[in-house]
Amino acid sequence: MQIVVLAGGVGGSKFVQGVRRAHPEATITVVGNTADDITLHGLRVCPDLDTMMYTLGGGGDDARGWGRLDESWRVLGELSAYGLEPSWFSLGDLDLGTHLVRTQMLEAGYPLTEVTQALCARWLADDPGLRLLPMSDDRVETHVVIPDPDSPAGRRAVHFQEYWVRLHAVPEALEVVRVGIEAARPTAAVLAALAAADLVLVAPSNPVVSIGPILAVPGLRAALRATPAPVVGFAGILGGAPVLGMAHRLLPAIGVAVEAAAVGLHYGSRDAGGVLDLWVMDDRDAGSAAEVTGGGLAVTTTDLVMADADATAAFVRHALDRLPTGSAPAA
Amino acid sequence: MQIVVLAGGVGGSKFVQGVRRAHPEATITVVGNTADDITLHGLRVCPDLDTMMYTLGGGGDDARGWGRLDESWRVLGELSAYGLEPSWFSLGDLDLGTHLVRTQMLEAGYPLTEVTQALCARWLADDPGLRLLPMSDDRVETHVVIPDPDSPAGRRAVHFQEYWVRLHAVPEALEVVRVGIEAARPTAAVLAALAAADLVLVAPSNPVVSIGPILAVPGLRAALRATPAPVVGFAGILGGAPVLGMAHRLLPAIGVAVEAAAVGLHYGSRDAGGVLDLWVMDDRDAGSAAEVTGGGLAVTTTDLVMADADATAAFVRHALDRLPTGSAPAA
Repeated sequence: MQIVVLAGGVGGSKFVQGVRRAHPEATITVVGNTADDITLHGLRVCPDLDTMMYTLGGGGDDARGWGRLDESWRVLGELSAYGLEPSWFSLGDLDLGTHLVRTQMLEAGYPLTEVTQALCARWLADDPGLRLLPMSDDRVETHVVIPDPDSPAGRRAVHFQEYWVRLHAVPEALEVVRVGIEAARPTAAVLAALAAADLVLVAPSNPVVSIGPILAVPGLRAALRATPAPVVGFAGILGGAPVLGMAHRLLPAIGVAVEAAAVGLHYGSRDAGGVLDLWVMDDRDAGSAAEVTGGGLAVTTTDLVMADADATAAFVRHALDRLPTGSAPAA
Repeated sequence: MQIVVLAGGVGGSKFVQGVRRAHPEATITVVGNTADDITLHGLRVCPDLDTMMYTLGGGGDDARGWGRLDESWRVLGELSAYGLEPSWFSLGDLDLGTHLVRTQMLEAGYPLTEVTQALCARWLADDPGLRLLPMSDDRVETHVVIPDPDSPAGRRAVHFQEYWVRLHAVPEALEVVRVGIEAARPTAAVLAALAAADLVLVAPSNPVVSIGPILAVPGLRAALRATPAPVVGFAGILGGAPVLGMAHRLLPAIGVAVEAAAVGLHYGSRDAGGVLDLWVMDDRDAGSAAEVTGGGLAVTTTDLVMADADATAAFVRHALDRLPTGSAPAA
């Protein structure tokens, strides 16, 4: 079975671990968000791809939730001693090795897809059926517009990483801008994976800054709508709050309520111009299931807490059992 | 008193420490060799400037003789885990911070002189009378031609760092090529320092790959010959062998014998088209003093072993006492 997962970073990694647990024999292609990428100190950093790669490769710091196990910050201490800004992004020594390799390969002309493959050759060697693809080889960066009384316009845009890491998502997000998205294209590898998929899963990642950018790459929605595979989405909002991260700070900026049902309807049914065949919500959101079906989207509820890979595998299996008749993938 | 020192890395740093000890009140401008610079993993590395900066700033590893005190190599371990080449250059984590700052500043358009000044603001803050200048803002890289039976020409060129660090100076050096030297120019800061100098010292650094490139920057010899200050050179070859490094492997490639007298005559007397007013050799080379004076160059001998800063200060004072009449600098 060929499974494609659209995913962001931390939540996406946990989700993919559960998918692998549920389907040990499947080929899993993860399409990762690259719109939170940033260039720091001359190095190209891809936080979502790296979180995924480290976590799935057993080198991630699961307790902290990001970065490398056994990390240190000696280089960063030096940059700080020289007074180099920005100092708010915590670039670890081990992590920095990845960025040095990536930056060199990008500067040598390799597309990000090939760079990611080269990096994953180290991390995913134990699971040859698992691969990680950037959503696009083109540069897309999410900026968040926040209030700024000192600016003539009363507002200014900051890189998503600055909004998230330095500002802790405290300022109100007035607007989310994806710089470069119009010119971006999905890669041939992503399009081929979607065309050949038996099952497409949309991870319970942030709808605005993780799944949102993937769906916004011109041509990607069309590829999703054209795939012969059923497309199943999973809510990351449980009982009105995100399990991880700060989707609740960003959903208002795109006019979507901080509710699982609202996010499902935002993704929409394939029958009505959207991308999903089934939306999976947590049991505590069962009361709004009628709202989803009323919007033309099939829905099911289960326990969506990703306590561990087994728990995640259980809800993935549950969802596949509830697929609308005729759309279940061949095992 | 304004002292200018032309110097390479490790030996140069020790020498400058002795000069500072001998002349606590002087302004010391070190003109550092940049021809052993190299770009590694996309980062611009200036080994001589950095050795000088770290050592004079108290952050160098004097026991190892290069690099930073309390250094670690975690990033390098990562590059190696990814299979990134070259792996023979031991780039430490703390050192890497310097290269990241430098590379970013160079890419932002700052000349190496300003970059070095910015880095030294951290390291040399305790000695405002000491400053470090690159010999040139232009890129010059020393390559060493070595025998290669597998090559059609029977020889090939390797970067000096590869010759020194990876090959340990074992292959015969057939030729030393300074790539970029014809187009290089001394900086305005170097020319101004030489013009304003009361005393110019040529450190006992490698005559081929440290002092050689400095003297080879077009216009620098003329500036040395025009300075009102006396120019005193110190031998790094003591009793027929270099105190540090592998000058004995490289001198043959430029047709100079591995002897202090030969190196002095290679630099030459200012009266006869060279750059020196006085050549200082170790006592054990006293037997060849007549050879030097026979070549028209004033010479003196003393104990040139740089056991510590006091020993170095002592031989610097000795040399100044022996300056030819009328050329002694104002105190």
